[in-house]
Amino acid sequence: MSRIEKDCLGQMEVPDDVYYGIQTLRVMGVSGILGEKVIKYPYLHRALVQMKKAAALANKEIGALDERRAEAIAWACDKVLTGKYDDQFPLDMFQGGGYTCVNMNVNEVIGNLANEHLTGHKGQDEVHPNTHVNMGQSTNDIVTSAEHLCIYPALDKLAPELDKLADAFAKKAIEFADVIKVGRTCLQDAVPLTLGQEFGGYAEFCRRQAENIRSLRAECFYLLVGATAVGTGLGAAPGYQEAFYKHLSVQLGEDVKSTADLFDGMQNDDFCVKVSAAVKQAACGISKIAKDLRIMSSGPRAGFGEITLPSLSPGSSIMPGKINPILPELVSQVAQQTCGNDVVISMAFEQGELEISVWAPTLYKNLFESFDLLTKVIPLFIDKCINGITANRDRCAKEAKETIALSTVVAATLGYPEGVKVAKYAQEHNLAVADAVLEMGIMTKEEADMLLDPALLVNPEKMAEVIARWKGEKQKQ
Amino acid sequence: MSRIEKDCLGQMEVPDDVYYGIQTLRVMGVSGILGEKVIKYPYLHRALVQMKKAAALANKEIGALDERRAEAIAWACDKVLTGKYDDQFPLDMFQGGGYTCVNMNVNEVIGNLANEHLTGHKGQDEVHPNTHVNMGQSTNDIVTSAEHLCIYPALDKLAPELDKLADAFAKKAIEFADVIKVGRTCLQDAVPLTLGQEFGGYAEFCRRQAENIRSLRAECFYLLVGATAVGTGLGAAPGYQEAFYKHLSVQLGEDVKSTADLFDGMQNDDFCVKVSAAVKQAACGISKIAKDLRIMSSGPRAGFGEITLPSLSPGSSIMPGKINPILPELVSQVAQQTCGNDVVISMAFEQGELEISVWAPTLYKNLFESFDLLTKVIPLFIDKCINGITANRDRCAKEAKETIALSTVVAATLGYPEGVKVAKYAQEHNLAVADAVLEMGIMTKEEADMLLDPALLVNPEKMAEVIARWKGEKQKQ
Amino acid sequence: MSRIEKDCLGQMEVPDDVYYGIQTLRVMGVSGILGEKVIKYPYLHRALVQMKKAAALANKEIGALDERRAEAIAWACDKVLTGKYDDQFPLDMFQGGGYTCVNMNVNEVIGNLANEHLTGHKGQDEVHPNTHVNMGQSTNDIVTSAEHLCIYPALDKLAPELDKLADAFAKKAIEFADVIKVGRTCLQDAVPLTLGQEFGGYAEFCRRQAENIRSLRAECFYLLVGATAVGTGLGAAPGYQEAFYKHLSVQLGEDVKSTADLFDGMQNDDFCVKVSAAVKQAACGISKIAKDLRIMSSGPRAGFGEITLPSLSPGSSIMPGKINPILPELVSQVAQQTCGNDVVISMAFEQGELEISVWAPTLYKNLFESFDLLTKVIPLFIDKCINGITANRDRCAKEAKETIALSTVVAATLGYPEGVKVAKYAQEHNLAVADAVLEMGIMTKEEADMLLDPALLVNPEKMAEVIARWKGEKQKQ
Amino acid sequence: MSRIEKDCLGQMEVPDDVYYGIQTLRVMGVSGILGEKVIKYPYLHRALVQMKKAAALANKEIGALDERRAEAIAWACDKVLTGKYDDQFPLDMFQGGGYTCVNMNVNEVIGNLANEHLTGHKGQDEVHPNTHVNMGQSTNDIVTSAEHLCIYPALDKLAPELDKLADAFAKKAIEFADVIKVGRTCLQDAVPLTLGQEFGGYAEFCRRQAENIRSLRAECFYLLVGATAVGTGLGAAPGYQEAFYKHLSVQLGEDVKSTADLFDGMQNDDFCVKVSAAVKQAACGISKIAKDLRIMSSGPRAGFGEITLPSLSPGSSIMPGKINPILPELVSQVAQQTCGNDVVISMAFEQGELEISVWAPTLYKNLFESFDLLTKVIPLFIDKCINGITANRDRCAKEAKETIALSTVVAATLGYPEGVKVAKYAQEHNLAVADAVLEMGIMTKEEADMLLDPALLVNPEKMAEVIARWKGEKQKQ
Repeated sequence: MSRIEKDCLGQMEVPDDVYYGIQTLRVMGVSGILGEKVIKYPYLHRALVQMKKAAALANKEIGALDERRAEAIAWACDKVLTGKYDDQFPLDMFQGGGYTCVNMNVNEVIGNLANEHLTGHKGQDEVHPNTHVNMGQSTNDIVTSAEHLCIYPALDKLAPELDKLADAFAKKAIEFADVIKVGRTCLQDAVPLTLGQEFGGYAEFCRRQAENIRSLRAECFYLLVGATAVGTGLGAAPGYQEAFYKHLSVQLGEDVKSTADLFDGMQNDDFCVKVSAAVKQAACGISKIAKDLRIMSSGPRAGFGEITLPSLSPGSSIMPGKINPILPELVSQVAQQTCGNDVVISMAFEQGELEISVWAPTLYKNLFESFDLLTKVIPLFIDKCINGITANRDRCAKEAKETIALSTVVAATLGYPEGVKVAKYAQEHNLAVADAVLEMGIMTKEEADMLLDPALLVNPEKMAEVIARWKGEKQKQ
Repeated sequence: MSRIEKDCLGQMEVPDDVYYGIQTLRVMGVSGILGEKVIKYPYLHRALVQMKKAAALANKEIGALDERRAEAIAWACDKVLTGKYDDQFPLDMFQGGGYTCVNMNVNEVIGNLANEHLTGHKGQDEVHPNTHVNMGQSTNDIVTSAEHLCIYPALDKLAPELDKLADAFAKKAIEFADVIKVGRTCLQDAVPLTLGQEFGGYAEFCRRQAENIRSLRAECFYLLVGATAVGTGLGAAPGYQEAFYKHLSVQLGEDVKSTADLFDGMQNDDFCVKVSAAVKQAACGISKIAKDLRIMSSGPRAGFGEITLPSLSPGSSIMPGKINPILPELVSQVAQQTCGNDVVISMAFEQGELEISVWAPTLYKNLFESFDLLTKVIPLFIDKCINGITANRDRCAKEAKETIALSTVVAATLGYPEGVKVAKYAQEHNLAVADAVLEMGIMTKEEADMLLDPALLVNPEKMAEVIARWKGEKQKQ
Repeated sequence: MSRIEKDCLGQMEVPDDVYYGIQTLRVMGVSGILGEKVIKYPYLHRALVQMKKAAALANKEIGALDERRAEAIAWACDKVLTGKYDDQFPLDMFQGGGYTCVNMNVNEVIGNLANEHLTGHKGQDEVHPNTHVNMGQSTNDIVTSAEHLCIYPALDKLAPELDKLADAFAKKAIEFADVIKVGRTCLQDAVPLTLGQEFGGYAEFCRRQAENIRSLRAECFYLLVGATAVGTGLGAAPGYQEAFYKHLSVQLGEDVKSTADLFDGMQNDDFCVKVSAAVKQAACGISKIAKDLRIMSSGPRAGFGEITLPSLSPGSSIMPGKINPILPELVSQVAQQTCGNDVVISMAFEQGELEISVWAPTLYKNLFESFDLLTKVIPLFIDKCINGITANRDRCAKEAKETIALSTVVAATLGYPEGVKVAKYAQEHNLAVADAVLEMGIMTKEEADMLLDPALLVNPEKMAEVIARWKGEKQKQ
Repeated sequence: MSRIEKDCLGQMEVPDDVYYGIQTLRVMGVSGILGEKVIKYPYLHRALVQMKKAAALANKEIGALDERRAEAIAWACDKVLTGKYDDQFPLDMFQGGGYTCVNMNVNEVIGNLANEHLTGHKGQDEVHPNTHVNMGQSTNDIVTSAEHLCIYPALDKLAPELDKLADAFAKKAIEFADVIKVGRTCLQDAVPLTLGQEFGGYAEFCRRQAENIRSLRAECFYLLVGATAVGTGLGAAPGYQEAFYKHLSVQLGEDVKSTADLFDGMQNDDFCVKVSAAVKQAACGISKIAKDLRIMSSGPRAGFGEITLPSLSPGSSIMPGKINPILPELVSQVAQQTCGNDVVISMAFEQGELEISVWAPTLYKNLFESFDLLTKVIPLFIDKCINGITANRDRCAKEAKETIALSTVVAATLGYPEGVKVAKYAQEHNLAVADAVLEMGIMTKEEADMLLDPALLVNPEKMAEVIARWKGEKQKQ
């Protein structure tokens, strides 16, 4: 069973069991190279359908569209928003023509549903995908608007994950508050700090990224609806724009409004660049943390060995008992990918042209892959890795005591040149700094115990107190 | 129904209808974020299974593995190579641990198949995935080798597409050999050339890229088998390596051999970087051509309008009759994506570490996405776009005649300063150069007709002849 | 003449006419590969010296440093801030060790100046670069803080240039307010708009970018001073931090304060990633505009020919009279470079490690090259290109009248299918839409004149009025 | 003192002490934003001047240029090739217009020198920069050709440095041939190998990269000379092309020839993309090695501590005795930069357009910065770092003995499941594998000594022998 549909290039038979139509069919024949559908990330379709509904209601309100058709369209939009018709969106994520086809696919599905609702059969006779569903719209304004509007649900998913990640680190920061260890800069032993302080830093980073992601939310609600094909609004009826924003705001429970200059809005997708940068930034920083966990857990014997990650799967097909840090590595893969995706997005933005950028599909694929990867890897990272990290306290303590960087205390109290001498002596004689200062006669046992205690070194206020006390005594002498 | 399988972390129930085992199951629970399976691009699994078979036969030959098990494994490999068991490779393309899990998934499927073949039931009792299927191997040598070996089928698919693209352009070059048009540099009108010359350049570019892609093939057959975990070959039996290469060479009908230094081979994935660069280079150049087609077909009226592309789908939801250059745009999307993918590959390569790089999944995802996109977009580009291009001969001819760049002929014959005067005059008086030289009294009508004929300008040899003749006459005067 | 200076590796002769010392000399011998000095972009040194002064005054206030030395150091800082000692900073921009050497170069120059001020000779005897100038500081906190602090002057330079660019476009938008032309999407003719509307979009984009750049300013004043080597503050005296921020705030006239978590601050350079993204975003968008200008000015005859750019230099060594759009091209080069630089910055950020990132030099080079290029190209772009653009009004008007996209009006008034018929007819018979509707008997001459007037089409409100009037009349009939 | 020069835009006063002329002066006023001159990397100018000489001699030979002028031009080219006139090339590396200005700068300097040679004064009267020096050329063919020709000297500089780097690693490989250490994959302890084996891998990698770099050389000698403005050769006299290649081949002592299709050659800069990829690939691999050195030398106490790098400069302004791995870090900075530069090059290539790419300046800046950085950092890396690396043999030996990965031997001899048991036991009881197998009663002391000797494990042939012997004995039992 099939029906005949027409468009400006002619007519085609469309199988009667599908809700998409002739224009979707045409494009299915000349695309498909990525092997992933646009609907893989459902955000764009949802945003389009929400706007189609608002447009229908707006057109009804201003008298541009009769009530019967408008309500059928709104009814169809509600159906589609349930997700039950997602299989009617078969188009590949990569498309030429700036997602005109996606807009038309949506118009056709809504149109056929509405037609069926009104007449009992699919087709273009009562509700036409261009004339009625797309009324007052152009792909150029509606897809560009959808690209903004579809971002906020993604932000709303990512930000809480970043919060949870921050919480997971913060919990560990408390657990590890008393694990004193050697700090390292340029991978070389430095003065001590606590493992808790490091994890506290991780927590704060994640918290800040959640904030940064949230800060992008408001901009998602500035749309271009009413600009139509090139920004002039040709084809939209008077009052349409105002009515549209009113209906959409009610529908979403958000204050949706028009961007200041429709021509600028049509020409530029810079918001995608900004959002991509924020996702990339978060991903790269979390990857940095993941790499820290890898190196801190390197070993179990011939590495840093400061922490142990949970064992998730055998780490070798040949070496029994070897366990790999697979979740930190997964996190770093995500970050690398977001960097590459960000390059594609920047290139695509820079190649926008005249009234509109045609690279919406490129932006969508890369931005939402980044969103999706980061949003999905975080709960795995928390549940399967971070929550199960244990500290190897003895090893941490031993190394903190032996680090030559404790000579910094000597430098801080007796001047940098004196610190240099102690560092050299400790290094050459393979001694702890505490032993070196004794051998060198620079400090008494009491002084060394007091000043070179790693537990003190990680607490600047106490340290300052002790130094002050020591200086006071020194001056008395 | 389920069976019990064991690994170094314990044991699990495995549903008895699947051929993969405990290690695959474990990893399914801690990955899955990309939402695309490794087997989406089947090259890696094919290469692994081909090597597993060669390894079994080699181990049999040298007496490390009994004949019964070896032949069961080889039998199982053949089964898997049919593609019928592809649904037994459920792992996500993104994985930590450098595809240890993919190696184990392959080991488990082969092992269970072989076990079933020998005993009538799946399990690890007769054929063990690690002890027998993975005998003499490590993920580190076998996956890294597979990353080389899996590339040649992809090259073998891409190169002929590039050839066909070259052919398509070459055919059009002949068709357009007499379409004279304005050349352009910096988007400004320059001296004429033929549309055929431009398309001939496109053909040659594609031909060179096919050659470049083919030049990478030989390197695919240098493998690291026998290096095992870190390059020393620990765990591989004497004679294994030689026997392996013999069997694999026979199996593939290619001369497969060991790389010169196994440690280097383990440490470095640079071949992936090189291949990615070659794919990116081809894609970017084809995108350049696609953009040329876009600008040459801009219009239909208010643009360059030199050519017309086939109409594939309505190009606007609001503007009737508008047709977009959707295939050239799809091609450019592919190129943008290969650039981003290349960045990810470079980053991953640079982050290799000590004995092995763990970023095999990153390399695989990005390299094969690039391969796949480019290989798939070319036939669409040929069939749906290039083959149907028509030239707008009148418009081309008219513009070639009117271009001020014809003053170059004046410069070439009477000196650059004289050429400058003519160019200025033509510009200011809005004249064709042929008319300007008449008005300026610089040439006679006969001279202008002879020297400023666009048809002559695109043929340097004839032009030189004419200029020589003209100079001869000039000197006679 | 030379003097002897010591450090923890030994001693060296230092030429007595230079203010830098032994540590700078050492590094000069093991770097120098970029061939550009850090001081090429003077922001980092200025920020470091400002902080050194604040640190000296703070240490004086809390009694950690005697008044004599503190004031000598502050005096030396003022000297250096004049820029007169810039030749004492000879280090190459690329450096291992995270700019420890730059911090020490600054410490040495200030130290030698202060020593000379106090003693009449350079040297480390009275004022030691580590003990006194660097008191309470580490490269890790002070360079990371300087990386924040050095950004606001760069923002303060770039934002006004973006404003001026917006102004330049806005001025042209007014000048071109009545130049009606064909719009284009996917490079294909679309409905008309005015050149002024396009330039107005450009102006608004630049205005938004200026705003975006300014929005980054506040974050520049959150520093890590007092964190010292790893974030614990070891080596900084009690009260130092508070006193430091007080003095620096007074010095700069800005409210400088401590970041919330010093460990996070030490670990992460994400602010650089964010700033780089903002600069890249602005550059790419301006490049998009530059490319629009290139294509609009393509020709002069066989291109779009809508505008003419000022002639700046001969555009060909062989074709007389050819003029290239060199400034738009320069702008696009800048954008391409900022994209590459942004990749480097992201990579470097992602590769931070444990307590501190060592890639400060990479970040600095790439971020400030981007800043510098964009800040410098804008005034050239304004003065030498934008201000001199003229519109080719006749050509624009002629094309706006002839575009088939005017059939959109038919679609908007009589339904999309009717629009399609008109578009086809106009295309096939090579007619303007206004003529097609007459021939087809769809509109009367009066209706066509009224509804298909390009001047009306760029003004949606008037258009709506006219359509409403027409519909009213239609219904009456 | 000044002289008057003319071009197609008018005339200007040019200071009489400079050899460049009016067109260079014009461009100096509308560029300069990068702050680095093209001549910073002298390759492009050298190649241009070499070709200018060959062109003059060719034009003389075919009678297009009189002997007097031709020889004056050739004489001037020789002067310029000495490098003494490098200060006459003041143009900034970033330029719009595809280096038309650089071609003209070269034409003007040669022209003025030649004019002065012939007439005693600079100027355009006897030798004109366009008419005579540029005879038969266009910026489009000559600069694009120079972009090829200028690459081989850079390859010739880089390849030997890569060879030396390979030699340096090879020397160390011999020195460290008996330093047994723990291997690591995914940063986790794996089976042992020798430090010499690792360094041998490094040597081989560098050797391969040198080869890869050399493999690019031949393509540098395929040029486009004779294509002139758009590929047709308009303006070049008959016989010019052949004569040019003859003269240039003699001049360079290389076989220089024409590319197969001049239109392809004009349209595409893909060779730059290929070269950039090769430089990036080498840099990234060397960076991977540099990072290995960083992590192997991490410590000195609380890290891997396997090797010690030479001390080059104090590594901290606060921590005495701290030494940073500054050369490995410098190497990684170079690699990061080459990745970003490669992105810019790919973007620029992809944005080529119609007859010619205008992005020659972008390609040049980024490609030669990459070349220069890598070529310069290698000798520093060798002399100041690699040559001075020492192995910490005791620590390496101790860790090799203690690694749990020795259980691989158990797996290889007694099956994987048995290996798993031993690994678990050793881990839980904190034992070396050799001790675990004794306690577990799996091996006798003699067997353990024989089979679990790290010295054996790094030598697969001996290992196989020993295992075979052991299996033989086992079977006898």
